[in-house]
Amino acid sequence: MTWTLSCSACHTPRESLDNATTCAACGQPLFASYAPVPRDHTFPARWDMWRYAAWLPLHVGEAPVTLGEGLTPLIDAPALAQSLGVRRLRIKDESQNPTGSFKARGMSATVTRAKGDKVPGLVVPTAGNAGAALAAYAAAAGIPVRVFAPKTTPRPILDTIDAMGAQLVRIDGHIGDAGKMAAAYAAESGWRPVATLREPYRVEGMKTMGFELAEQCDWSLPDVVVYPTGGGEGTVGIWKAINELKNSGWLAEHTKQPQYVVAQSAGCAPIARAFNAGADHADPWIDPETYASGLRVPTPLGDRILLRILRETQGHAASVSDDTMRIATRQLAEHTGIDAAPEGGCALAVLRDLVSAGKVSRDADVVVFNTGVGASYRS
Amino acid sequence: MTWTLSCSACHTPRESLDNATTCAACGQPLFASYAPVPRDHTFPARWDMWRYAAWLPLHVGEAPVTLGEGLTPLIDAPALAQSLGVRRLRIKDESQNPTGSFKARGMSATVTRAKGDKVPGLVVPTAGNAGAALAAYAAAAGIPVRVFAPKTTPRPILDTIDAMGAQLVRIDGHIGDAGKMAAAYAAESGWRPVATLREPYRVEGMKTMGFELAEQCDWSLPDVVVYPTGGGEGTVGIWKAINELKNSGWLAEHTKQPQYVVAQSAGCAPIARAFNAGADHADPWIDPETYASGLRVPTPLGDRILLRILRETQGHAASVSDDTMRIATRQLAEHTGIDAAPEGGCALAVLRDLVSAGKVSRDADVVVFNTGVGASYRS
Repeated sequence: MTWTLSCSACHTPRESLDNATTCAACGQPLFASYAPVPRDHTFPARWDMWRYAAWLPLHVGEAPVTLGEGLTPLIDAPALAQSLGVRRLRIKDESQNPTGSFKARGMSATVTRAKGDKVPGLVVPTAGNAGAALAAYAAAAGIPVRVFAPKTTPRPILDTIDAMGAQLVRIDGHIGDAGKMAAAYAAESGWRPVATLREPYRVEGMKTMGFELAEQCDWSLPDVVVYPTGGGEGTVGIWKAINELKNSGWLAEHTKQPQYVVAQSAGCAPIARAFNAGADHADPWIDPETYASGLRVPTPLGDRILLRILRETQGHAASVSDDTMRIATRQLAEHTGIDAAPEGGCALAVLRDLVSAGKVSRDADVVVFNTGVGASYRS
Repeated sequence: MTWTLSCSACHTPRESLDNATTCAACGQPLFASYAPVPRDHTFPARWDMWRYAAWLPLHVGEAPVTLGEGLTPLIDAPALAQSLGVRRLRIKDESQNPTGSFKARGMSATVTRAKGDKVPGLVVPTAGNAGAALAAYAAAAGIPVRVFAPKTTPRPILDTIDAMGAQLVRIDGHIGDAGKMAAAYAAESGWRPVATLREPYRVEGMKTMGFELAEQCDWSLPDVVVYPTGGGEGTVGIWKAINELKNSGWLAEHTKQPQYVVAQSAGCAPIARAFNAGADHADPWIDPETYASGLRVPTPLGDRILLRILRETQGHAASVSDDTMRIATRQLAEHTGIDAAPEGGCALAVLRDLVSAGKVSRDADVVVFNTGVGASYRS
């Protein structure tokens, strides 16, 4: 396997794979590209996301840094489908990843590359789960790590970061503030900064949700994908994976991307606000406030890509209050047995609103992502 | 698929599969038996423990109640192997199951049968994780459930039980006391009691750890399996699975069962005490006390089977203090990136002692089970 990097916006190629961050020309995220994977490719017999190594940044003969991430279940929720009034509703349950969230996928890819590049250390700003995931994979690889997280991050998540032996810096402010401190520390230490979409490999790991979704749907796709959105790497990853599958001929020729729905909290909804105003980028959200810490991302670097994906796929973006989220989270657990994070509840509540408003068809086959485990938010 | 039930001790067959509990003749646990599964059997392409449905209590055409349990990673831990002085050490990480523990496997099987039998409700006494797992699967199946748990159960586990909408009764005393109350409630309500080994299907789900272990080792086996032991269903399940694989010809003819090691807390070590005294059964442990709640089981019904397994396989049973467990749990997380439960730390610490004492060979290939997620014990 081999890959190249180029800008996701202006397509400027990046010559070297070393220490890749964002596009030197325009500052937008870099994307990796691969040769098409033939349709008769046999997946390796393994029970983690590296099943899809043919589309991942892994050199021939290299062993990934893995903790068993991915291959999460896609759980049919007929009672919820009936309650919302859609034809079919399935939950892709990311809570069963290492450290309890979808962030494990990105960090497995990121730390694999960091180990390959022999970096001396890793630095990340986090709204919570990304920090816990990085701490775990860095421990597995034996690489020191410093995590900058808001003091308001749920305590179980901070405790997990600490349990892994990471250097945890609890800061005043939100993930944007943490990002500035992390960047400064990286510049000073020479450690690699791996903030969302500012490093090109996290989103590569996220892609595996898209490969799995397609394989679990027998290489077809649902009509609608609802993703709770903070930094946006989940949605971007799935969309990128589906494009790669299409380019490699793994999906029927006229298969369309699903409609993507960005679900946010009313207390921090920069993408929903921008989308509904018809903008091509999102302005910073002042004073972000929500108990769903993964959604407390006021200035996502992925804003332009996300908005493009939503328009390209006739998608939607909407937000709900924290109270609505709480009720939907409880409903999700009680009806499915999934210990959903508030972000999962957010996605369910946004879907309910969109169905009621006639924006999502009652005939739709919908997949809602639950990105984390509810236990991480109870303290 | 079909199966029969008979006593694990006196082999008395049980005629009916309905409402099976323990042997009517001698009170020991019932075991299920299956026709041999041919070596050319193709496993269904699914990412949960029902991959092994040919050896599980599932009728033809029946859909299991699943939340994606099983297919957990077997993680190489070379740094820990070196630290302990054994040739190879791998961790089978059960923390990535639904509700964060190996108990999900048993409850997936139990609730599948309960749904098939159309029971009106389910009742369980628990030291913690089994209650959370049952609450989740019962929610998935839409069956009411009442859980009796000690007040001293870690709060995150009690909160998960509550999040699933289960009826949670917090009791004074230990799981033995909870067991009496659960049995009384079951008699009164007509709901099915599903305490460890008092219902024959939980251990069937546990077996899948053994199938996975063998498959992950390319149908061979490690020399030693270390299992943190409360009620004992994990060890019994693995041992039973290996026997079934041998009987079906899936393992080379002279393949031996691994040596099993029962790891317990010094504050509740009935099996270790009985084993080291040469007894064939365990006396009740008075005043059980350990923060590893899964090990706080003073009178396991599986005592006779466990002791037989240990003797048959030249195994061992030992205990460590809670302080030793705490240090080992931290070490396990920092060296592997696995957010280990104290029970996993217990298994690691017991292994260290046995290697030091020359009871486990330095040339051994060892698998340690981490049965749950550390986050469930931090409150």
